[in-house]
Amino acid sequence: MSGLFITFEGGEGAGKTTVISQLAHQLESEGHEVIVTREPGGIPIAEKIREIILDKAHTEMDARTEALLYAAARRQHLVETVIPSLNEGKIVLCDRFIDSSLAYQGVARGLGIEEIYQINQFAIDDYMPDLTLLLDITPQNGLLRIESNKDREVNRLDVEDLSFHQKVHDAYHSLIKKFPHRIKKIDASFDIITVQNNAYRIISEFINKNGR
Amino acid sequence: MSGLFITFEGGEGAGKTTVISQLAHQLESEGHEVIVTREPGGIPIAEKIREIILDKAHTEMDARTEALLYAAARRQHLVETVIPSLNEGKIVLCDRFIDSSLAYQGVARGLGIEEIYQINQFAIDDYMPDLTLLLDITPQNGLLRIESNKDREVNRLDVEDLSFHQKVHDAYHSLIKKFPHRIKKIDASFDIITVQNNAYRIISEFINKNGR
Repeated sequence: MSGLFITFEGGEGAGKTTVISQLAHQLESEGHEVIVTREPGGIPIAEKIREIILDKAHTEMDARTEALLYAAARRQHLVETVIPSLNEGKIVLCDRFIDSSLAYQGVARGLGIEEIYQINQFAIDDYMPDLTLLLDITPQNGLLRIESNKDREVNRLDVEDLSFHQKVHDAYHSLIKKFPHRIKKIDASFDIITVQNNAYRIISEFINKNGR
Repeated sequence: MSGLFITFEGGEGAGKTTVISQLAHQLESEGHEVIVTREPGGIPIAEKIREIILDKAHTEMDARTEALLYAAARRQHLVETVIPSLNEGKIVLCDRFIDSSLAYQGVARGLGIEEIYQINQFAIDDYMPDLTLLLDITPQNGLLRIESNKDREVNRLDVEDLSFHQKVHDAYHSLIKKFPHRIKKIDASFDIITVQNNAYRIISEFINKNGR
């Protein structure tokens, strides 16, 4: 039996990490085999690609080079982690996937959503997510949450200005229109228990409907 | 004035390196500013990408990951070396470019010529070569030349079997049909002086016709 490929998307501070971890426990307690992952996922080739992307010395990195590198790392993580897990019948919970590239690079960086979709389509081939949960939060609220979380390491994207994060937010909303059957929106401004329960309900309904 | 972007293609042992070097001298002696380059061209980001591709430890490298990495390295070399040289009005002689990916990865590795064209189109954007010289030689003759050249380092592609090189050869011939105005075939089985003269004649005609 083939598994289930679920991805989680959302702007900074939407709470994806916490929600994914709790969902994994809930699904496992029901007897599902679950794997939680995120790119580059400890895959040596993908880790090395990510090192090139994040190296602060690479100030001359072109935006298209970066987009192709992200797609390459995505491919390798998919082939080495996601596909084998799906073939073993597991539920794969993946923190960010193709929609992040569409929102961040396609829209916020201005490379074009169709262009980024095409190179990612090549990377993903037949493995689009079965279901994608968009944890929706306004950029203002998301950034407030990040600032109040002292344990969280500040990354390269956190320091972009508010208009960048607003573009990402708007892009996610266009993606819901583009993929209405795959992407389901969850209001992430509620408390974490409510968000988690809503996410769990959507996944349960999907599993029941698809006969698992 | 914008420069001229000329790429050289052909199977192993076609003699590209020698021909390019001699052409550069001829064109410079006529007062043209010429730059000879090949990917990754000493560009640090592109060199690092190439290290990942060629690392023998990466036996689990997926063919699509590899194709995306080649496209990423191509983009960066294009942005840092080719485009600035063209903007300075130079003639850029580049050893292999998009057609190598179409022939080797699209056809010989079986990833599909249209798929490889799409991701490379993203990498190249508006910078397709103005002119491409295909140094045409049968795989049998090309490999004989390589074997007789003791100074040449054997690379990863040399050790592929004859049927692989035959696929590359056939692929180049399909590419001439796909891009008849851009790609010009030169019979590379002749002696090097004849090959070089034929290459020079095609470039001169192109320059005269395009008013340089």
